[in-house]
Amino acid sequence: MKLGKKNDIEQLAVSTVRSLAIDMIGKAKSGHPGMALGSAPMLTTLFLKHLEIDPKHPDWMGRDRFVLSAGHASSLLYALLHVSGYGLTIEDLKQFRQLDSLTPGHPEFGHTKGVDATTGPLGQGIAQAVGMAIASKHLSALYPDGDKLFSHRVYCLCGDGCLEEGISQEAISLAGHLKLNNLILMYDANNVTLDGKLDLSSSENAKYRFISANWDVLEVKDGNDIKAIDKALETAKASIYKPTLIIVHTIIGYGSKLQGTNKVHGNPLSEEDALNAKKVYGFDYPPFTVPSEISTLFKEEVIDKGAKRYLKYEETLKWYSKVHPEQFNVIEKTIHNDVSSFLPTKIDIVKKDSVSTRVASGEALNWLVNILPNMFGGSADVAHSVMTSLKDKSTFSSDCLEGVNMNYGIREFAMAAINNGILLHGGLRSYGGCFLVFADYLKPAIRIASLSKLPAIYLFSHDSIAVGEDGPTHQPIEQLAMLRSIPNVDVYRPADEMETYASWLLALRSNDHPSALILSRQNLEKLDESNYENVTHGGYVASLEKGPLAFTIIATGSEVNLALDAKKKLEEEKIYTRVVSIPCLELFDRQDEKYREDVLALPYEKRISCEMLSTFGWAKYAKYQMGIDCFGASAPAKDVIKKFDFTSDRLVHLIKKALKKN
Amino acid sequence: MKLGKKNDIEQLAVSTVRSLAIDMIGKAKSGHPGMALGSAPMLTTLFLKHLEIDPKHPDWMGRDRFVLSAGHASSLLYALLHVSGYGLTIEDLKQFRQLDSLTPGHPEFGHTKGVDATTGPLGQGIAQAVGMAIASKHLSALYPDGDKLFSHRVYCLCGDGCLEEGISQEAISLAGHLKLNNLILMYDANNVTLDGKLDLSSSENAKYRFISANWDVLEVKDGNDIKAIDKALETAKASIYKPTLIIVHTIIGYGSKLQGTNKVHGNPLSEEDALNAKKVYGFDYPPFTVPSEISTLFKEEVIDKGAKRYLKYEETLKWYSKVHPEQFNVIEKTIHNDVSSFLPTKIDIVKKDSVSTRVASGEALNWLVNILPNMFGGSADVAHSVMTSLKDKSTFSSDCLEGVNMNYGIREFAMAAINNGILLHGGLRSYGGCFLVFADYLKPAIRIASLSKLPAIYLFSHDSIAVGEDGPTHQPIEQLAMLRSIPNVDVYRPADEMETYASWLLALRSNDHPSALILSRQNLEKLDESNYENVTHGGYVASLEKGPLAFTIIATGSEVNLALDAKKKLEEEKIYTRVVSIPCLELFDRQDEKYREDVLALPYEKRISCEMLSTFGWAKYAKYQMGIDCFGASAPAKDVIKKFDFTSDRLVHLIKKALKKN
Repeated sequence: MKLGKKNDIEQLAVSTVRSLAIDMIGKAKSGHPGMALGSAPMLTTLFLKHLEIDPKHPDWMGRDRFVLSAGHASSLLYALLHVSGYGLTIEDLKQFRQLDSLTPGHPEFGHTKGVDATTGPLGQGIAQAVGMAIASKHLSALYPDGDKLFSHRVYCLCGDGCLEEGISQEAISLAGHLKLNNLILMYDANNVTLDGKLDLSSSENAKYRFISANWDVLEVKDGNDIKAIDKALETAKASIYKPTLIIVHTIIGYGSKLQGTNKVHGNPLSEEDALNAKKVYGFDYPPFTVPSEISTLFKEEVIDKGAKRYLKYEETLKWYSKVHPEQFNVIEKTIHNDVSSFLPTKIDIVKKDSVSTRVASGEALNWLVNILPNMFGGSADVAHSVMTSLKDKSTFSSDCLEGVNMNYGIREFAMAAINNGILLHGGLRSYGGCFLVFADYLKPAIRIASLSKLPAIYLFSHDSIAVGEDGPTHQPIEQLAMLRSIPNVDVYRPADEMETYASWLLALRSNDHPSALILSRQNLEKLDESNYENVTHGGYVASLEKGPLAFTIIATGSEVNLALDAKKKLEEEKIYTRVVSIPCLELFDRQDEKYREDVLALPYEKRISCEMLSTFGWAKYAKYQMGIDCFGASAPAKDVIKKFDFTSDRLVHLIKKALKKN
Repeated sequence: MKLGKKNDIEQLAVSTVRSLAIDMIGKAKSGHPGMALGSAPMLTTLFLKHLEIDPKHPDWMGRDRFVLSAGHASSLLYALLHVSGYGLTIEDLKQFRQLDSLTPGHPEFGHTKGVDATTGPLGQGIAQAVGMAIASKHLSALYPDGDKLFSHRVYCLCGDGCLEEGISQEAISLAGHLKLNNLILMYDANNVTLDGKLDLSSSENAKYRFISANWDVLEVKDGNDIKAIDKALETAKASIYKPTLIIVHTIIGYGSKLQGTNKVHGNPLSEEDALNAKKVYGFDYPPFTVPSEISTLFKEEVIDKGAKRYLKYEETLKWYSKVHPEQFNVIEKTIHNDVSSFLPTKIDIVKKDSVSTRVASGEALNWLVNILPNMFGGSADVAHSVMTSLKDKSTFSSDCLEGVNMNYGIREFAMAAINNGILLHGGLRSYGGCFLVFADYLKPAIRIASLSKLPAIYLFSHDSIAVGEDGPTHQPIEQLAMLRSIPNVDVYRPADEMETYASWLLALRSNDHPSALILSRQNLEKLDESNYENVTHGGYVASLEKGPLAFTIIATGSEVNLALDAKKKLEEEKIYTRVVSIPCLELFDRQDEKYREDVLALPYEKRISCEMLSTFGWAKYAKYQMGIDCFGASAPAKDVIKKFDFTSDRLVHLIKKALKKN
């Protein structure tokens, strides 16, 4: 190949990253060459000519973001991070998909420099990109001259898999509605999925689908035409009112003898085919080679330009710190989502005798929003039921980018994934709410939040059969167990107003794991012993025994008062029990053994758990359980509770029965 | 109102069901009048003039189906079922949302005659309707002259909520692709959601969205114009190549002083406003009144015509039983999804020494498909990884309606909800597969399957960190606990080929609950003691102790062999253990106490569970656990397993430690 012309060098750059991807996958004997090879021209063009980044400062807050929603094309991303100088070495590339390497099977945020999002579960990357675009827009409007710091673009690459997943529709619909012109979605349209041709499962017209969602749509007919890709990206960047979809028609596994078929989707190329592909590219170098002219190209176009960009940004920062010192201080403190320095250390409230924890949560939220500088959130169309609204604050929209109340629409899954994007971006503490039963809809995004160590906050109200009339489809049973089973998620089920305030504070104190607040629809009476200090231990003695201790009752949320009731009834029969409130099992688990044993007081055989939800998981703490392991029923709450006999009398009965057994 | 004209009577019919809905919600002091009042004209028109049903035979297999995807408009459906003669009395209507009534908050399949689907969790109803339409198409093609029995239409009513949920896109995309012209979706476009105007969260053009998915789209500008609604339905029924969306522009809470606002979405009308609304309708009758001319109208148009329809169908059935006696026999047996009479009572296989349970599942499936007459299923684009393909069988498509291999595309959630629709329809045993980690995506549909008592079958492969290179985003940890926590779902994690075959048989034996099969990617060695009888008990002794029993090891799936290994190592130190294989915890739980205690042999304190997934939930069976309560890692399987020290040596160590403690 005769180089010299810029276009030729860029073609060689494409061939280089393609060859690196082939080598990585070949060495690992594992990976997905199909999309990596097909998408190489568009991603190489993006890195070389459009992404405003600085590889030496991968965390710089004003940089463009890139989300590889099609996370299985990770080899391509790593190859580009290598040539772009993000610190990934050839040795790292050779360790692709190996234990503890910097190049795992799917991109992992916080693990590899330059990876802006953890992706792999399809569709979620698009929603994360939408979240990042929202964060950029909002931060630009939130702070005076904020656009100087936060106005950047978000690029995302997706394939057919992402677009078949329903969450993509939720995300693109909202992005179009919000007119996120800073969002550019590149769609690798190769017409092939794992099982075969796309037309086995889809006849969709992507162009009209996106136009109907208020997007601009551009099309590149030949995915190898880097000039056309460049031009499309240039056009997309100029969009004023809409996010842009660029449909790039590619050939899956380009260069392979199996190109254009599903056989190249998830299987490494054979040695022979690898050689063949490189021949097709005209790439005549040993494995894992980056030709010197390509190193030079990326040095000049990405690394040096990046350094200049960052220098300029530093100047802007300096200027900003002088002109807006106060805001600068806030931004510096909060850009990595740590808001601990803003948080109060105590909760000064006069507990109301009786209030639902959803209302208490709304109050706590509205107290905190005036203390914290960067709260942003809302609900999936249940703001008035889950109490997510920030009073006297405006609503985020394309006309009011400084608004902090977010209407996610009836899109629970996208809400959670978008919040992940907002947190990945940095600078805002986002939260989202819906009914607990619909935690099911957004669970896959909670998992990604946890895996990405993001301090997401979920507000789940209507937390038991006490939902009442809406019936079993709306009454959570197993959802609480589901949430508790996710690694590294703190799940709070506060029992009164004070526990709710404390749960909020603790959730905001986290900077490395998500928290869920499980809230009641019905009013709950205040506890005498509830206070912030107690909640920080996850569990505490809500009521001490009044005589020789016979049994320990462990309860959460709405059931603590029921337990206190049972305790009183048992006292009349000289059976003395202790009531332990455990607003957060995970936090309680993290206390030292002595604390836990002091609180629980009695051995396993003399403990009962009481929670008006599935008993699944409770056997870890108590031999006996009072819970509900079937679906609920439609009726006024008091009648449903009666039907399931969820009363203090039954708890009394169960304890007496257990005492006889022991 | 002057009656006499047909149109006037139909208007009165609309007013009657509206008034009934108002009365029901008013009496219950709970419910959602907004959509019930807005949708009344279209649903009344549908029942009066289009639905080919017979209220006296609500289960008749050839009837049209109706799915109220917007389940919160249940009052309207119940009102229509009342006037249509489905057996719901005025007293039943007065018991709306009361305990054990036939009129619960959201429609429940199997509970109220005439309710074709359990709905409430938004979006899923659309997918269920797609499933019903698929079932109708497939059954029509599967049997000779099948169209005479199964060719019917499926109607579905949805609102903005359903269309904002991502699953709607998955479902409509597949419906358009499959050219389901027997599907008619009525969209109550009232531009209002719970939190306010729709334009708070959406600017979508529904018309173009559906056209881009290969649908016909009709529009009715005035939702009170029953002539226009009638005409649109007529046009939709004539569609030859496409499903049809009818966008009906309505006014939420029509008649109320709060009409057109979100205040009438989920709150009962005040007494005064109820009177006002009825005045607007010109409906001057006491509460809960059906004017005699309306009773007559429904008697003539729905009940009598329905009876005639059914008579004709009975004749067709008689004819069919003569012309196709064999098929008639099969249809009669299987229409309610019971296939037990076809199932073999034993499994004659020579166990292979080593095979993955996903491969074993594929073999079992291909064995069963030749025994059962009505298997239908596939995967979410992972047919070759989860082994869901039926060999030598064709693929279901608009050109091949008799095909039994279904390509759901990368749409896990819709796959499961569509399968619910297929099972609700009756006549087919459907199944769907994906990787276990993506059980997260479809969980909300498993819940509905369980709640609806549907014998859905899920195949979840790649069931542990042994997934390997794809890394933590693709390695299940908490998913198994999540599935086990859902009420009434039998979750199988077979340990070898025989247990896999047995799990399949047991899953197919169910006619009232879903089953999930959790399958390994890697090969597993055969167990000596595995057989069908043993698996029917959920758990059994996989290996007896060879001396005085010191400890019981409970294991499932890929960990049974690890447990056997540990057992051998401990024997060398004269520590004798027993290995219990529990392929299905739920089934084991249903055995009598004696059986369970005989199998487990030792008390709680001398048992350990071993499963290469979250330990969440295992404390119910054993004091000690060996599991993984954090996220996995990307590397070849053996390296990941080593990283997490998931070895027989560790199990040996844990047991010895426990023995010292005890």
